[in-house]
Amino acid sequence: MSIELLIKKNLSGLVNGDFVLPFEVEKKSLAKGQVVTHYGYVEDKLLFLDEGVVQINTLKGEEERILEFVFPGEFFSAYTSFLLQEPSDVQITTLHPCKVSIIKRENLLQANQVSLVASHLSLHVAQQLFLSRARREKDFLTLSAEERYRLLLEKDPNVVLQIPGNKIASYLGIKPESLSRIRKSIIP
Amino acid sequence: MSIELLIKKNLSGLVNGDFVLPFEVEKKSLAKGQVVTHYGYVEDKLLFLDEGVVQINTLKGEEERILEFVFPGEFFSAYTSFLLQEPSDVQITTLHPCKVSIIKRENLLQANQVSLVASHLSLHVAQQLFLSRARREKDFLTLSAEERYRLLLEKDPNVVLQIPGNKIASYLGIKPESLSRIRKSIIP
Repeated sequence: MSIELLIKKNLSGLVNGDFVLPFEVEKKSLAKGQVVTHYGYVEDKLLFLDEGVVQINTLKGEEERILEFVFPGEFFSAYTSFLLQEPSDVQITTLHPCKVSIIKRENLLQANQVSLVASHLSLHVAQQLFLSRARREKDFLTLSAEERYRLLLEKDPNVVLQIPGNKIASYLGIKPESLSRIRKSIIP
Repeated sequence: MSIELLIKKNLSGLVNGDFVLPFEVEKKSLAKGQVVTHYGYVEDKLLFLDEGVVQINTLKGEEERILEFVFPGEFFSAYTSFLLQEPSDVQITTLHPCKVSIIKRENLLQANQVSLVASHLSLHVAQQLFLSRARREKDFLTLSAEERYRLLLEKDPNVVLQIPGNKIASYLGIKPESLSRIRKSIIP
């Protein structure tokens, strides 16, 4: 999935056949463990994950918590910082080697002023990020850690099984030992 | 604050002086305690609160939790249901007599296809709702109930003091007795 394909799939009606993206996109390869956005940085980009896995962390006091894993075909960013232009309270790090497409915030905002394709893409991103937050909040309120782990597995079992257990446990808000028990009960 | 004023304030550059909204808006007065969107309803509207206060609830098992209070000048909707066209897992109820402006989903989506003003307004709404979720999630992770109560008070102390204590307690995720203690410690 590329940004162009995502636009064709989700914003059909606005584009036909061949079209040119109304903003610049920079393609980049990132090593494993590379920080994409640091804590305190004012976010100036929107990223699209072409390959790999990315984790988004936040700090709860001294303790670091994983808020989210990003999978290929998804947009990501320190989005609160992107919108408010305040220092980021999340940190974004590659978990595996990644390929990303980067859109500069400034270029996107300019394109939004004149292009329906750009403004619909921005809308799509904002809505997807809303849905992902809303889903996470609901899952936390209503599901057990095991149920949340099963949901994560459904997203992409191969990728999830490659993520280190301590990171999955941090995401689920449980101890690594509890994750081991859950894993054993799922795959006996 | 009206929708027109909000557009002038936030989407300046796209409109000048007088302009006509690119979709129909229905104005309505609602009684106290009226349900705007029921659990299980597929959301077909976006609302703007002109006057009053609105609460958004969800169910955690048997127990009802208040997710959010909506104040005048804010948009609201069962937004996950609005986006996915799935039955709503939130219920929206007026807490006081309210005046609202209602935009039908269908009309908004049509306007989005041809109007930059409509699509920027939709973008603004999606971003605001994202920010509100993100802020709530962060506050839950990092603040005490008392700190969260102080934040709510800052939004509009007069309105907040009119909201029944049990509702505020449900929003903060604490017992009404704990809220009484917090209130006493703030206003001795």
